[in-house]
Amino acid sequence: MRAEIITVGTELVSGQTLDRHSYYLSQECYTLGVPVYFHTSVGDNDKQLMDVIRLAHSRSDLVFLCGGLGPTEDDLTKEVLAEFLAEELILDPKALDHLKQIFIHRLEEIPSNNYKQAYVFKNGTLFHNLHGTAPGLTVTKDQVTYILLPGPPRELKPMFEASVRPFLMRLLSQKSVIRLKDYGFFGIGESSLAEKLNDLIQNQSNPTIATYAKDVGVILRLTAYATDEEEAERLFAPLEEEVFRRVGSYCYSKQNESLEEVVFGLLSQQNKTVAFAESCTGGLATHLLTTVPGSSKVVKGGLVCYTNEIKTLMANVPEDTLNKYGSVSFETAKYLADNTRQQFTTDYALSITGIAGPSATEGKPIGLIWIGLAERGKVTRVYQLQLKGSRKRIQLLAANYALFILQQRIKKGELMQ
Amino acid sequence: MRAEIITVGTELVSGQTLDRHSYYLSQECYTLGVPVYFHTSVGDNDKQLMDVIRLAHSRSDLVFLCGGLGPTEDDLTKEVLAEFLAEELILDPKALDHLKQIFIHRLEEIPSNNYKQAYVFKNGTLFHNLHGTAPGLTVTKDQVTYILLPGPPRELKPMFEASVRPFLMRLLSQKSVIRLKDYGFFGIGESSLAEKLNDLIQNQSNPTIATYAKDVGVILRLTAYATDEEEAERLFAPLEEEVFRRVGSYCYSKQNESLEEVVFGLLSQQNKTVAFAESCTGGLATHLLTTVPGSSKVVKGGLVCYTNEIKTLMANVPEDTLNKYGSVSFETAKYLADNTRQQFTTDYALSITGIAGPSATEGKPIGLIWIGLAERGKVTRVYQLQLKGSRKRIQLLAANYALFILQQRIKKGELMQ
Repeated sequence: MRAEIITVGTELVSGQTLDRHSYYLSQECYTLGVPVYFHTSVGDNDKQLMDVIRLAHSRSDLVFLCGGLGPTEDDLTKEVLAEFLAEELILDPKALDHLKQIFIHRLEEIPSNNYKQAYVFKNGTLFHNLHGTAPGLTVTKDQVTYILLPGPPRELKPMFEASVRPFLMRLLSQKSVIRLKDYGFFGIGESSLAEKLNDLIQNQSNPTIATYAKDVGVILRLTAYATDEEEAERLFAPLEEEVFRRVGSYCYSKQNESLEEVVFGLLSQQNKTVAFAESCTGGLATHLLTTVPGSSKVVKGGLVCYTNEIKTLMANVPEDTLNKYGSVSFETAKYLADNTRQQFTTDYALSITGIAGPSATEGKPIGLIWIGLAERGKVTRVYQLQLKGSRKRIQLLAANYALFILQQRIKKGELMQ
Repeated sequence: MRAEIITVGTELVSGQTLDRHSYYLSQECYTLGVPVYFHTSVGDNDKQLMDVIRLAHSRSDLVFLCGGLGPTEDDLTKEVLAEFLAEELILDPKALDHLKQIFIHRLEEIPSNNYKQAYVFKNGTLFHNLHGTAPGLTVTKDQVTYILLPGPPRELKPMFEASVRPFLMRLLSQKSVIRLKDYGFFGIGESSLAEKLNDLIQNQSNPTIATYAKDVGVILRLTAYATDEEEAERLFAPLEEEVFRRVGSYCYSKQNESLEEVVFGLLSQQNKTVAFAESCTGGLATHLLTTVPGSSKVVKGGLVCYTNEIKTLMANVPEDTLNKYGSVSFETAKYLADNTRQQFTTDYALSITGIAGPSATEGKPIGLIWIGLAERGKVTRVYQLQLKGSRKRIQLLAANYALFILQQRIKKGELMQ
């Protein structure tokens, strides 16, 4: 099976909107074992869209069409496809009912334009839209299956997860169960991870293995095809074991969670609290943990001590220490972590001090970072990192390393090297 | 002139990499007055790439080809295009010299694979690559102009700015000067901004007007076509005046800067310092300002006081105040700003306290935010906002509103309403 993805909208080709759907659907297709060969974006123009569909029909077995299902005159996707396939559109009572419910909820009459959204392919199926007025649609002709999805991301993604993925699984094979596992890795680059698993990736069959670089960290996705859940688990087990034997120390999550979610979960389970003392990251580590709902249970707060004056004044780092070792040093990181834990009376405190760039200071190189971790009743440890990248990149990595170090500590009860 | 953009790489169609180049180049083409009708992504496959080029040749006058200029066997773009156009590639001495310089700098021999990067179209021109080994290329045949650009964003964008935009301006008209002005707006949505300028947008000719939504805020781009810089300025003046009359209060920058860059610039010019007290934003406002190089000159630091305990312990907010008015209140915001300014001995202090969600607390609605601004020798003011969106969105907007409020204060010497 060969797939391609078409995104429809003048806002895409004019540069108003970034197309993320092709990226998302390609990942999902990869997971389902369906190769994608082309992405196309085209404006809201019936002739151009017809040409794009004609070409797709000639070269693909599965065609996604995203966008252009709205109520306006510009929304042409369904109508152009129906014309090209010479397939009839009919008013669907269930789709109409869904529209009515939405507009009753809004205390409005259905605008006359919106009625067209209740029309579906007579020889097709519809996908329920939990978050909007336009149903998703599918129709097959000449052994080419079309899947039409609404443009707004908050509608497309839930529809894909709830309806389209199961539909495709049935389409691909009536009996197969497809199971995904997404593992979160940190502290190892995508290429290093792929290299360490190179033979497994080269010889993959079932489960398949793929890596995806995120802004921070890497996702390793295993996909198993099986007749039932139990068989899927049996297929995962040896591969997972081998992956963990090689690179397990970099894995912070067996689900697709962020580092901050994992750290929040661990602290929360154990009823522990944390505070931060940040210099070069300027509050980013603290902020990241507070993006998790409920984080006030575990984050008491933190200090951003961006200047030496404030390191002394607010975090009680001795002036002597700053003069002798500099603000970017083992000693300063240790004082910051210890004093902050005491001031905030928390179980843990993390400190971060370093050179984010763009210029070296204190005669120390850009990217040098010290991270301190204080724990109630334990010896405070300090870690040295040498990071690469732009100023923002170094800040982002340093904040995440601090969270990663805390996660390793809580998980192992002892320190990583 | 009709343009289209082709991005080449298996990592694109397999969902490993998000295509941002098509988005970027479409914006640039729009600015140059060249409409883009199609985006296509295709893998590293010579036959598929040839088909895509053949189609583009039949329907466009200007074709961008991004990626596939690297040294590996997978990198096929130049070779496939040369074959399709029946145009010769020749070794270019300047390009070879550039390669040599790069590898001398790396203390390496030129790998044999890389030599192919010094081959250019005999009947074409090359664009110098300041950040990598692959030069950009252009060649014209059958009145179709191809522009080949390297895939890495850190190479493509500087090359576009330095060489390709001027090349296109010459191509479009020997005499025209094109001038862009990007204005940064905050506190007004893209649709509201467009509505307030609707007649100007509808009747645009020269200069043109376009709006682009950013993660935070909106860019308004004016583009003037003129015979010289002076004429461009004359063309801008009346339109700029009218835009400012209507929506000037939302404009924080007449260049495409971020809010934090503008605030840093203003503080820096006046030798003023700032500190922060953040509750619901968890350090994000402080962090944003520290992303600007040199920010230690103006940011002394801040407190993240995420719990009531810490608001009292570290920021001296009276327990009575927290009990009587709650942590999300005018009074708490005022204490936080005042006390932080005093503790950190800064010229300004900003405080942020609010309900980021996902649930309401203290009987107050999600999105309610209080921002305090203390200034040495002035009355402290407190602003109330009601924001919408996810938890992360509310945090991001609240942090940016704090910076916006500070920017307005410094600029006007007095407060916005």
